[in-house]
Amino acid sequence: MMDSLKELIERHRRFVEERNWQKHQSPKNLVMALTGEVGELNELFQWLTVEESWQVEDDAKHAVAEELSDILIYLTRIADELGIDLIAAAHEKCERNDLKYPREAFLGNYCRPHEYKNRKK
Amino acid sequence: MMDSLKELIERHRRFVEERNWQKHQSPKNLVMALTGEVGELNELFQWLTVEESWQVEDDAKHAVAEELSDILIYLTRIADELGIDLIAAAHEKCERNDLKYPREAFLGNYCRPHEYKNRKK
Amino acid sequence: MMDSLKELIERHRRFVEERNWQKHQSPKNLVMALTGEVGELNELFQWLTVEESWQVEDDAKHAVAEELSDILIYLTRIADELGIDLIAAAHEKCERNDLKYPREAFLGNYCRPHEYKNRKK
Amino acid sequence: MMDSLKELIERHRRFVEERNWQKHQSPKNLVMALTGEVGELNELFQWLTVEESWQVEDDAKHAVAEELSDILIYLTRIADELGIDLIAAAHEKCERNDLKYPREAFLGNYCRPHEYKNRKK
Repeated sequence: MMDSLKELIERHRRFVEERNWQKHQSPKNLVMALTGEVGELNELFQWLTVEESWQVEDDAKHAVAEELSDILIYLTRIADELGIDLIAAAHEKCERNDLKYPREAFLGNYCRPHEYKNRKK
Repeated sequence: MMDSLKELIERHRRFVEERNWQKHQSPKNLVMALTGEVGELNELFQWLTVEESWQVEDDAKHAVAEELSDILIYLTRIADELGIDLIAAAHEKCERNDLKYPREAFLGNYCRPHEYKNRKK
Repeated sequence: MMDSLKELIERHRRFVEERNWQKHQSPKNLVMALTGEVGELNELFQWLTVEESWQVEDDAKHAVAEELSDILIYLTRIADELGIDLIAAAHEKCERNDLKYPREAFLGNYCRPHEYKNRKK
Repeated sequence: MMDSLKELIERHRRFVEERNWQKHQSPKNLVMALTGEVGELNELFQWLTVEESWQVEDDAKHAVAEELSDILIYLTRIADELGIDLIAAAHEKCERNDLKYPREAFLGNYCRPHEYKNRKK
């Protein structure tokens, strides 16, 4: 079985090559394209309450899934153009997060990331 | 071997649960957090030429990898909170893209997505 | 008395010229720089509840004011580089909004923009 | 003569009140709405070269003016909801920028903001 993310990366690369799009798929341009999709994702949630945002259903949920897909596609394209191993980088980041927000500090109390940072100052 | 993206999703979910962060990890909040990381990614590329954006190296490349990781982390968190299968959704999107930009239309000519759309109007 | 926005536009233009920055202040680059600041603005609000977002005070409010300023600065720079009259364009947009969301349709009932659009479909 | 930005702020506030929209125009929601418009602005420039971005004309330029207007509208709404004097804040920011990037440091040489920051480290 092929790894799911690797498969996506290769599928997108082929998609781009078959359309002669390599030339304008620079990391800079791809970052802007990613940003466009993130804007669309924001539009789907902007007027919802926090509670409503957990209950998107049917058409709205489908629209969210489509925007998440677009973002994932551009994300893998940027990584691919720059030769970055996205999965390895994400695990490294997780390890830094484990150190930055040590599990013990949150045992038995509720404290959001920005509150934890302010408290430590 | 576990699938790489599935593994990441589960790792992030556990990270959140261990810190009692479920309450504020609503899709709405996570979309804003994702947007914050996308802003940081833009900052890394804003003054670079298109050519320079392909040649980020060393510290700059490491910084890009970190931002891409943050984006991937929030992306998988949003999908997880909403019960969206990110990989399945991305493949569906690829199939729609195959129809929207048929391979044959780009054989032997260079035409960017927005130019192709305008031409078809 | 000089108009406030005109004064800002001219101040920023001078700031850029005095630092030889015209060359990289292309609309494309400025859009990315604007996006970076919008990301920072999102970071200030991402974990806040809707109610808390109305009550930012002191340091947090100062930080918001600074991000809004950065966004305004890049906004006026983009308009200036492209010769767009930002104030005239904004009033035109207001007029389109008056037609799109007619006042009478909202008398005595509460309906968010996306709900109004869906209802009309 | 009324100041242009003040006039816009008041016009938007009235627009919102006449539609009973105050309730969902929280700073948090408005930041997401602003982000949506910034996404649309990115879409207009994503595949353009830096040079092309200076030459948008006709329909494309009109579309840019519309997105800039939307961003300005949400920007003034956020400031209005939080009681922030946007113009005063922008001038304060300009003064900080004058100190951060002293004019003399750029006399006779070309150096982008990120390069200047790196050089000073």
